[in-house]
Amino acid sequence: MHRFLLTSILILSLIFQVIAQELRSPNGQLNMVFSLQNDGTPTYQLSYKGKPVIKPSALGMELKNDQKSLLNDFVLTNSQTSSHDSSWEPVWGEVKTIRNHYNELLVTLTQKSTDRIMNIRFKLFDDGLGFRYEFPLQPKLVYFVIKEERTQFAMTGDHTAFWIAGDYDTQEYDYTTSRLSEIRRLSKDAVTPNASQTPFSPTGVQTALMIKTDDGLYINLHEAALINYSCMHLNLDDTNMVFQSWLTPDAKGDKGNIQAPAQSPWRTVIVSDDARAILTSKITYNLNDPCKIEDTSWIKPTKYIGVWWEMITGKSSWSYTNDLPSVQLGITDYTNVKPNGTHGATTSNVKRYIDFASQHGFDGVLVEGWNIGWEDWFGNEKDYVFDFTTPYPDFNLTEIRDYSKQKEVKMIMHHETSGSTRNYERHLDKAFRLMKDNNYDAVKTGYVGPILPKGYYHYDQYTVNHYQYVLEKAAEYKIMVNAHEAVRPTGIARTYPNLIGNESARGTEFQAFGGSKPNHVTILPFTRLIGGPMDYTPGVFEMDISKVNPNNNSHCNSTLANQLALYVTMYSPLQMAADLPENYNRFLDAFQFIKDVAVDWDESRYLEAEPGQYITVARKAKGKKEWYVGNVNGETPRSSTINFDFLEAGKTYVATVYADAKTAHYKTNPQAYTIRKGVVTNQSKLTQWSASGGGYAISIVEVDKTQTKGIKKLQ
Amino acid sequence: MHRFLLTSILILSLIFQVIAQELRSPNGQLNMVFSLQNDGTPTYQLSYKGKPVIKPSALGMELKNDQKSLLNDFVLTNSQTSSHDSSWEPVWGEVKTIRNHYNELLVTLTQKSTDRIMNIRFKLFDDGLGFRYEFPLQPKLVYFVIKEERTQFAMTGDHTAFWIAGDYDTQEYDYTTSRLSEIRRLSKDAVTPNASQTPFSPTGVQTALMIKTDDGLYINLHEAALINYSCMHLNLDDTNMVFQSWLTPDAKGDKGNIQAPAQSPWRTVIVSDDARAILTSKITYNLNDPCKIEDTSWIKPTKYIGVWWEMITGKSSWSYTNDLPSVQLGITDYTNVKPNGTHGATTSNVKRYIDFASQHGFDGVLVEGWNIGWEDWFGNEKDYVFDFTTPYPDFNLTEIRDYSKQKEVKMIMHHETSGSTRNYERHLDKAFRLMKDNNYDAVKTGYVGPILPKGYYHYDQYTVNHYQYVLEKAAEYKIMVNAHEAVRPTGIARTYPNLIGNESARGTEFQAFGGSKPNHVTILPFTRLIGGPMDYTPGVFEMDISKVNPNNNSHCNSTLANQLALYVTMYSPLQMAADLPENYNRFLDAFQFIKDVAVDWDESRYLEAEPGQYITVARKAKGKKEWYVGNVNGETPRSSTINFDFLEAGKTYVATVYADAKTAHYKTNPQAYTIRKGVVTNQSKLTQWSASGGGYAISIVEVDKTQTKGIKKLQ
Repeated sequence: MHRFLLTSILILSLIFQVIAQELRSPNGQLNMVFSLQNDGTPTYQLSYKGKPVIKPSALGMELKNDQKSLLNDFVLTNSQTSSHDSSWEPVWGEVKTIRNHYNELLVTLTQKSTDRIMNIRFKLFDDGLGFRYEFPLQPKLVYFVIKEERTQFAMTGDHTAFWIAGDYDTQEYDYTTSRLSEIRRLSKDAVTPNASQTPFSPTGVQTALMIKTDDGLYINLHEAALINYSCMHLNLDDTNMVFQSWLTPDAKGDKGNIQAPAQSPWRTVIVSDDARAILTSKITYNLNDPCKIEDTSWIKPTKYIGVWWEMITGKSSWSYTNDLPSVQLGITDYTNVKPNGTHGATTSNVKRYIDFASQHGFDGVLVEGWNIGWEDWFGNEKDYVFDFTTPYPDFNLTEIRDYSKQKEVKMIMHHETSGSTRNYERHLDKAFRLMKDNNYDAVKTGYVGPILPKGYYHYDQYTVNHYQYVLEKAAEYKIMVNAHEAVRPTGIARTYPNLIGNESARGTEFQAFGGSKPNHVTILPFTRLIGGPMDYTPGVFEMDISKVNPNNNSHCNSTLANQLALYVTMYSPLQMAADLPENYNRFLDAFQFIKDVAVDWDESRYLEAEPGQYITVARKAKGKKEWYVGNVNGETPRSSTINFDFLEAGKTYVATVYADAKTAHYKTNPQAYTIRKGVVTNQSKLTQWSASGGGYAISIVEVDKTQTKGIKKLQ
Repeated sequence: MHRFLLTSILILSLIFQVIAQELRSPNGQLNMVFSLQNDGTPTYQLSYKGKPVIKPSALGMELKNDQKSLLNDFVLTNSQTSSHDSSWEPVWGEVKTIRNHYNELLVTLTQKSTDRIMNIRFKLFDDGLGFRYEFPLQPKLVYFVIKEERTQFAMTGDHTAFWIAGDYDTQEYDYTTSRLSEIRRLSKDAVTPNASQTPFSPTGVQTALMIKTDDGLYINLHEAALINYSCMHLNLDDTNMVFQSWLTPDAKGDKGNIQAPAQSPWRTVIVSDDARAILTSKITYNLNDPCKIEDTSWIKPTKYIGVWWEMITGKSSWSYTNDLPSVQLGITDYTNVKPNGTHGATTSNVKRYIDFASQHGFDGVLVEGWNIGWEDWFGNEKDYVFDFTTPYPDFNLTEIRDYSKQKEVKMIMHHETSGSTRNYERHLDKAFRLMKDNNYDAVKTGYVGPILPKGYYHYDQYTVNHYQYVLEKAAEYKIMVNAHEAVRPTGIARTYPNLIGNESARGTEFQAFGGSKPNHVTILPFTRLIGGPMDYTPGVFEMDISKVNPNNNSHCNSTLANQLALYVTMYSPLQMAADLPENYNRFLDAFQFIKDVAVDWDESRYLEAEPGQYITVARKAKGKKEWYVGNVNGETPRSSTINFDFLEAGKTYVATVYADAKTAHYKTNPQAYTIRKGVVTNQSKLTQWSASGGGYAISIVEVDKTQTKGIKKLQ
């Protein structure tokens, strides 16, 4: 409390009412002012180093039906301030220890005409603001339905944003970089086809939203601790450049069922004049509850391969036969149907992957398409679509269990739900038990297609509750979850660290569906990754997809060196090597980096960063004297200059640099890379060129000086 | 096949197309003609003893969106006829053996412009018609969404109907008796308040619908085998007197998601010129699949009492405290809250009921309000509303388990879901396991209030699927189900005989909520009971509810003798004695009938019946030489004349008659009854007067002649 810098500006009204309260961040650079307008509308504003970041913005909740909304008519009946400084150790993460340091303001607002109370709690960190609505238990407000949350984020100008279109069902879009004023015009093109999609407004965008101002401020808007609430999008009033919260509705159009005592998720504004500070911010995790899983010893960062890319590219199929237009689980007999000959998840093919994983030191093997039902799984609003327990006739669960155990490789289960959430919940216990009995400790869940029950969306409160249910049920079974097509993460992996991954963005699969923008991976860490790690599935070595499947003319818009760098730049405790074993066998020297790179870290140093252009980060492997550096580059070729002062002084290291060759280009020459070794110390510097859509990866291993014989200083 | 009377009238068109096919019932009295109209619309018509019952009525399915509807453009591409005669023994029932005897016509219709096939299967019994749509697996029709089923039942005139208003969420209405043409005018008054209700049309009515024509035909319209389909209501075109099917929509307004191969439930038309034949018809069960539960030894007809009426009347409460406006399960601490002092399900009160049950030979004791969550359970769209496993602090599960076992009484579990279906499914396994561990073999489920997920209804396909899921899951645990506020039964108890009861109508509870019409119980067997037994909970002895709870001025519109008769007239393998032990103790002579009456039967003889006026039935107790007779009477006092020719010739019986006293009246003098004994044989006759809203009950026990000493012939 001795460094507590919070002050209150008290402007006394006739009835001694406080109408403005100021909160400063611990280092004093961020300043938040809460105030009530004349009509009792709560507002806040935020500035950074004296510059406005968020102009005065209204706060409140519009309620359904006959209940008076919680928008205005408020008086401030209490306010409390406090300060907090502590540290905690995540089960896995970019750093070993996370500091949680903020000043807090809790305002109690009483609506005069209704005598109802709404609290707003602000936490101001050095790197940003978090605030949420709190509804204490009270006589006049217990149950209510939100028509819309009315939280504003008033921008100070026509900033540049890195955005994807607001949608109730998907985030699998390429990012558009534009002025705020251009969103409306560009919105249509931004909505590309997806298996399920429900855009809601021409100026709707998703969080985490990355923004850059003309005077060099970086602003990130997102939410933290999305539990039992509807996922928040942002809708832009592009006349006034004001973002307003836009929650995801349920089948009745309602946007939230609240039971006091309750609170909204945190709304976050990360801000800095250094883009790297956005990437290092731990606000999102800090605003979540501490870990609720007592024994976390079973949660293990994992590097894996999988029977997956061959289906994504169309080389093989999830389904076993082409002869079943209508599968009825429990009735349909697979034993006498004709196999299609393209089924990927056969026992022998899986064994081939297990062999490869074992040979190269991978922890796990994912297998998709192992269970019956894939013949008619998609697009049919089919309730009982999978049972998650019955393997195809050519997939021998027991044999794979024994073989993987013998090879000391864990299996990774796949549970595609086809969006049928009730059906999944009905089978969860049996499916999880089957996993534990057969050497599976992690599950990749999928929610491809519209959600069932019909009328619900991927991101509404009801479905958000489903993902949470699965996560907590998995924890009971000591199962790690990697949820695809689920709601975007909001830092709840702090509380439930068995959530080791999410998709919730346009992943590498789209490189086989037509390709993603080459700068996509320079944006994701500023947006999607703010809430938690992504199972991005990097590691594609064959960019010409027609080489994998002659019928697929897609191209992976990335150089091979860029693919390597992703293991460092796209932080995740779960990293896949997505490509086929046969493609890795062609480039075993480059593959060595994927084998070496860590998946858990003691330290992370963002060396360079500019959204849409480049990110360079150095990370120290957890418990090891090894560092890994990754640089991803956008469309424009660029030389990156870094120094190695993050290394321990007086120590000697050997660095291996995997870089774009001079002729490399993501489109025309993606496989042109060079590998070189050199000695580095904490005095070293490096200028390294990256191609268009390229990058570089460096492994740095501490050595005795004797081990550097014949190795020159890194050039 | 030797009695096979089916003939085909072949009218040859230019392309040798069969456009009319006739089907006769085994005894030849019913005649059904299927034909295609000129535009290829399928139709059927039905006559009884030469009199038209159903005029030519269209058949078909309107499909959603871009799919051409299955309404017309059909040609008959095949037809098959067959005959069936077999018998089966129900696990419980009104009779020991059920004959399943019908002639069948299966027509295969091909839609010319789409090459899609729709089959219609007709089964014509001596007592009525069943037909359904069948969609075989075919290339051009696998998945489709029903916009509306277009099945017509064209009436031959402005008949009299015994109806309740069509509603997606409740059937708990009093019946209205009126001409079809009067339904529209009377509809508003017919919709009385209910905890959840969604009427859909001023001429919408529910099935089973009972109809009487002016020339004395009795017609009943219902459905059988409602599995994975939306519940059917009927909407009347009151210009043409044509009923048309009106399915229950889901949250998107869709009325069915179909995956071929599939079939609709059976649509049934029971018809006779003798009202009693409607009551004895077993069409509904015969159209269901045979029992799918292999070992049924654990399914036991049950007579029970319960801690229930005291809550229904308002004398005591389900909730434990008045101090918790917001319960959050797993968080809310009940240990320190102030008990409200009115909680019914206390250990000591339950023990009192167990004592009473044991003393009087009841099989089970139901306890409602035993588990936490009742403080805010209703009307809040609350997802996690009950956990079905945590008892209130004053209900000792283990102590009750031990006490009930010692007293040789089974406990009956109560699972109120508050309509929150997902939450119930999430807890099913644990809840059922808890039951089995604590001496509960039967569960009463409840779905009071609107269904969650929001936008869904009690009777839509999604929710119908839920009830079925619970039923089948219960069977896995060897648990009997008595489902309240679930969809009305359609004979599926043949397939899953652990469905020993349903409410799905206005039960006795409404006698404490303002009262039901005195003739209600003379209609229910013609309507609600056609699909399966009802947990009507008869046995109210204190009709002045203010005597139970001074704040409740409701009156039970029934005489005490009528209440006794209900145990015979309202067939159910599950019968409650609903009133409080203290009320039974005041009338132990009358209570003797409830103690004696059987709940399972070898034979049932309907002696007299007229919907809305009276029903008299005699039943032989299963495996015993005892008969029980019940007569319920409507508003008009009446003398009933029966003879005892159902008794075995040459045997002697002692009959005990529980009848209305001459001064009895449901409103003014309901507790005036007489009890008399007399000897009867199969030559005996009896003329017995019943009061307005009255009735009589007779127990008949075979005796040695020596045991009749001092007992006169029954007068």
